[in-house]
Amino acid sequence: MRPAGEVRPAGSAGTAGDIGRQNSSGAFDGQEAAGVLEWARASVDPELRRAVASLPGQIRRIARYHFGWEHADGTPATGNAGKAIRPALVLAASAALGGPQSDAVRAAAAVELVHNFTLLHDDVMDRDATRRHRPTAWAVFGDADAILAGDALQALAQRLLAEDPHPASKVAAARLADCVVELCAGQQADTAMERRGPDEVTLDEVLAMAEAKTGALLGCACALGGLYAGAGEEDVEALDAFGREAGLAFQLIDDVIGIWGDPRRTGKPAGADLMARKKSLPVVAALASGTPAAAELAELYGLPHEEGDTETLERTVLAVERAGGRDWAQGQAADRMSRAMHELSRAVPDPAAAGALLALAEFVTRRTA
Amino acid sequence: MRPAGEVRPAGSAGTAGDIGRQNSSGAFDGQEAAGVLEWARASVDPELRRAVASLPGQIRRIARYHFGWEHADGTPATGNAGKAIRPALVLAASAALGGPQSDAVRAAAAVELVHNFTLLHDDVMDRDATRRHRPTAWAVFGDADAILAGDALQALAQRLLAEDPHPASKVAAARLADCVVELCAGQQADTAMERRGPDEVTLDEVLAMAEAKTGALLGCACALGGLYAGAGEEDVEALDAFGREAGLAFQLIDDVIGIWGDPRRTGKPAGADLMARKKSLPVVAALASGTPAAAELAELYGLPHEEGDTETLERTVLAVERAGGRDWAQGQAADRMSRAMHELSRAVPDPAAAGALLALAEFVTRRTA
Repeated sequence: MRPAGEVRPAGSAGTAGDIGRQNSSGAFDGQEAAGVLEWARASVDPELRRAVASLPGQIRRIARYHFGWEHADGTPATGNAGKAIRPALVLAASAALGGPQSDAVRAAAAVELVHNFTLLHDDVMDRDATRRHRPTAWAVFGDADAILAGDALQALAQRLLAEDPHPASKVAAARLADCVVELCAGQQADTAMERRGPDEVTLDEVLAMAEAKTGALLGCACALGGLYAGAGEEDVEALDAFGREAGLAFQLIDDVIGIWGDPRRTGKPAGADLMARKKSLPVVAALASGTPAAAELAELYGLPHEEGDTETLERTVLAVERAGGRDWAQGQAADRMSRAMHELSRAVPDPAAAGALLALAEFVTRRTA
Repeated sequence: MRPAGEVRPAGSAGTAGDIGRQNSSGAFDGQEAAGVLEWARASVDPELRRAVASLPGQIRRIARYHFGWEHADGTPATGNAGKAIRPALVLAASAALGGPQSDAVRAAAAVELVHNFTLLHDDVMDRDATRRHRPTAWAVFGDADAILAGDALQALAQRLLAEDPHPASKVAAARLADCVVELCAGQQADTAMERRGPDEVTLDEVLAMAEAKTGALLGCACALGGLYAGAGEEDVEALDAFGREAGLAFQLIDDVIGIWGDPRRTGKPAGADLMARKKSLPVVAALASGTPAAAELAELYGLPHEEGDTETLERTVLAVERAGGRDWAQGQAADRMSRAMHELSRAVPDPAAAGALLALAEFVTRRTA
């Protein structure tokens, strides 16, 4: 399973610095989320670049390539370093609990480093040759270099926290390390499932895997923001749960986009996840539906995709849809979002203070295919 | 390059608890070092096992297999978890500076976790199929599982320090993270050198690589011990330098053993490093010697080893020897050891207090081929 939301552009950017502010209608639109993301990117990038600049020689070069700051030949690039959703969650959670904005910047950078370490390693394991519209690090530099750059980014994340004088940095370091273990378990479950038949995988297993692989780091990001704002244990756990539920919604929508997404926006061919026979959430839900379309889907998934066979691909897309995979995923995403809102209201009862977090959560689930 | 000292048995074990005590002759023999190692293993193992037990499902299983505690099928094994040189250095350095013995156990376990994370990943990159006389984790569980178990062990190491209430734990965490970055750079240089011709690699490059790959973690282990004993900055740096120099001596001797070692002790065929055309320190020194034997060696190294061709292998061994590779490596090892002793005397002027560290340093370099 592709970690959610890595290949889509952030859309039009709002004004930096408008975090936590609602627009005039009182709702949160895509532009507000874009503003929060841009603000987070602007806050975290200098810290991130400083950290990466401290890496030695070739490791630094691989990292800079991966972040989209350099081309493969080492010349500067003005690339797409991803949407910075995780650092934005750290900063927005900290701000929502009344923490000074600048305090949590290192923690936000640490979370982004961990995210990118997992991307480097996942791409090696999944043999994914493209990320953010460019060849992946292993495809350019080889497996060993991509593995080592990932290892170094994990170390760098922990160093940022270990060197951070903030009183919450030590608890944050332990929590981030725990999260890395959970991310590893999620990726392990994912790769193990790839080797099993589509009828040997249960929906509960795929949901648990998605929570570990995507939910855990979004939850950890929010929890770290809370810790840096001096929040109590209950609020920190509620923020973690908010991030986890929003993360699952995020992954559900991402899986929907992986089947029904517009290739011009995703940078991948339509139905890419189906061609790769991925056991994504809508597919497993469809297979578990007991409908005639489920049987047809199982049969189609039993054979490898033949390149250029768009007719069978279209039949597969339709089978997932008719077996209820799309509706289920969208319903689940809405359900997860409502749980996320409930958790958020526990930690941050004031809607104005929760504004940026709400905007981010809505942003990741309002993306349409 | 194989990280030094991973495949040889620890030899006869002394009595646990005799750390820092010299034997009656005032010198340090192999038995004393074995005692220190056994004491370290006994102190650190419970912490290590507790940490690994906290890992989820399959990740835990891979880690337990790697440490030799379980067979591939999950049944208990009474295996060889390695010689615990790095944790022994942490504990001995802390004791030498007057730190209470139990204080540094978590730091010692963290260093051992980092070491084992790098072994798991190095084996994947180097395609080494055997470690400690058993199939490597990737050979049993696949690349993805071995990479993920390594990632999780790095996280676990940092979690141990982040959860350690000792006042030095935060500085230690930063130092350990820095060390991981250096280890990655060392392994990167190593894998990059493997792709270059033997005449394109300089002795300085190989020495720098060996310092990063082997010296850095031994130095870090000693430095962490010093930090946990409350040592000042100068003493911590001297301990780091001691470990680095001893580590280089260690690697030099290990490379000698990789060519002239007894297969019954190394668990590898005689001349294994030469058959694999490794650019180990004696080989690069031999190639750089400008002797006729160097030219012969370059010619032999230009062709792949043919299995079963013991005659050519013997000629290769002899060429390294005649070109002075063995003498150079042994002389360098002695030189590094004398530098190590000098650094140690700066941090720990009292020879009785330095006893265990001296015994460990002598142990790793007194091993004979």
